[in-house]
Amino acid sequence: MLTKNQIKELRQLHQKKFRVLQQQFLVEGVKMVKELIGSNYKFRAVYCVKTISAEFPSAFVISNEQMSQISTLTTPPGVLAVVDIPQFEPQDFTKGWTLVLNDISDPGNMGTLLRTADWFGIQQVISSENCVDVFNSKVVQASMGAIFRVSVHYADVLKVLEDCRREDIPVFAADMHGKALNEVVFPKNGLLIMGSESHGIGQDIQSLVSESITIPGKGNSESLNVSVAAGIICSRLPII
Amino acid sequence: MLTKNQIKELRQLHQKKFRVLQQQFLVEGVKMVKELIGSNYKFRAVYCVKTISAEFPSAFVISNEQMSQISTLTTPPGVLAVVDIPQFEPQDFTKGWTLVLNDISDPGNMGTLLRTADWFGIQQVISSENCVDVFNSKVVQASMGAIFRVSVHYADVLKVLEDCRREDIPVFAADMHGKALNEVVFPKNGLLIMGSESHGIGQDIQSLVSESITIPGKGNSESLNVSVAAGIICSRLPII
Repeated sequence: MLTKNQIKELRQLHQKKFRVLQQQFLVEGVKMVKELIGSNYKFRAVYCVKTISAEFPSAFVISNEQMSQISTLTTPPGVLAVVDIPQFEPQDFTKGWTLVLNDISDPGNMGTLLRTADWFGIQQVISSENCVDVFNSKVVQASMGAIFRVSVHYADVLKVLEDCRREDIPVFAADMHGKALNEVVFPKNGLLIMGSESHGIGQDIQSLVSESITIPGKGNSESLNVSVAAGIICSRLPII
Repeated sequence: MLTKNQIKELRQLHQKKFRVLQQQFLVEGVKMVKELIGSNYKFRAVYCVKTISAEFPSAFVISNEQMSQISTLTTPPGVLAVVDIPQFEPQDFTKGWTLVLNDISDPGNMGTLLRTADWFGIQQVISSENCVDVFNSKVVQASMGAIFRVSVHYADVLKVLEDCRREDIPVFAADMHGKALNEVVFPKNGLLIMGSESHGIGQDIQSLVSESITIPGKGNSESLNVSVAAGIICSRLPII
C-alpha cells in the first residue's frame, strides 16, 4: 500500500521539472519494464498489480486503483518502475555515427528516432536543449526499449558542431536543398543532424555542416516525417 | 450560429460509424483546410472562428466555444471543414507502385504512411479492413495533406494478392527474415506490403508474396517503426 504522498511523488515524475529534481523517471508496461530489468539502467523500485505479480517477483504489489492514479496512460500498464536518470560517458565522435536532434518537439518522433538509431547501431544521440525531454513517458514508450541502449546527451548543438569542425569530424544534415541521397558517400564516422520538420535546421547550424542531404521524391508532400527521413538516411550509413 | 443539434452531428463525424453513414469526414486546421480547398475533394462547408475569417472568406463564422465543442483537438483548430468521402477509380497495379497496408492500427502511423507514399509518388494505397479508418481525424492530421493526393482503397488483401498472382504483378513484403534490402532489385511496378509491427504480415499473405525484404541493422531493437520501415523501402523504389 502506497501513501497518498508517495503516489503524488510518483505522479510528479510525469513532469520534467520533478524528473530533473529527483534525477529519476518512470518506465511503464510489461515489455518496457522487462527491457529495463535486462539493461544496465539502475532502478529504485518496481510496482505492479496483483494479476501479473508472478512475472515480477521483486515488485511491490499495489492495487489497480493506485496504478491508475500513478500512470497517465489511458490503459494503466499493470507494472511500472522508478529509474535513475543515467550519467553517460563523454561523447566520442571518432567511432561510428552520432545522430544529432535539433528542436524535435513531438515525443512520438523522439522515441521513434531513438528506436531507429538503435536499429542501425547508432549508440550516441546529441539532443538540443529545445527537444522534448527524452525521459518523458511518451518518448520512453515510443522508443520501445531503445532508450536503454542509446545514450542521449543534451548539449548546445552549435558548440558541438564547432568542436567537430576543429577536429575534422564530418557533419551531415538533412535539408530540403542538399545533395541527392543516392549521390552522397558516407564515411565510417560522422554526425547526422535532423531538424524540426517545420523550421529545418537553422542558418547558424547550416554554416557548420559539411554536406546537406536531400531525399529525392516526387515533391507532392511538403516534407517527410522527421523519423521517416532519419530512417531513410540511417539506412545508407555504413553499419559498424 | 449553429444549433446544438448541428454541433452534435458534426461531432459525430469523429466516429467511424457516422462517417460511414454520412459519407463525410472532418478536416481540421488552417494548413489542412487550405490543402483541402486546393485539392479535388468536394466539401460541404467550412467553419471558422472570427479571428481568422479573413483567410477563409466563404467560411461560416462560429464562436470559439462552438469550435471547441466540435473539435476533439486539445487546441481547437480555428477552422474545420465537412468533406465528402471520395469515390476512387478502380485500382490499377500495372502503373507504378502500390503500398498495401495490413493491420495498421495506429492513426499516427497510418497518416505518416500516406505522407511517405505521397512523397515518393505512390498514388495508390490498399488498406486491409482491419486498419484504422483513413478518415479518422488523427490520420487526416498526420497525413499532412497527403490524404488529398493518395487514393486509399479498402479491400480484402488476400483477394488482391490472388488477383496479382494471376496477372503476374510482383508483390514484395517487409519481413524480419527476407532478402537484405540492398540486394533487392525493384521492377517499375508492383505491390509493397507493410504489416503490423507486432504481428507481421501473417502466413496466408506470406504465401502470396514474390519476395520478402529485410532492412539490415545491428538487430538491437526488435523492429523498426512501420512508417520508418516503409520509408526506407520506398526510398529504394524507382520513382516514375
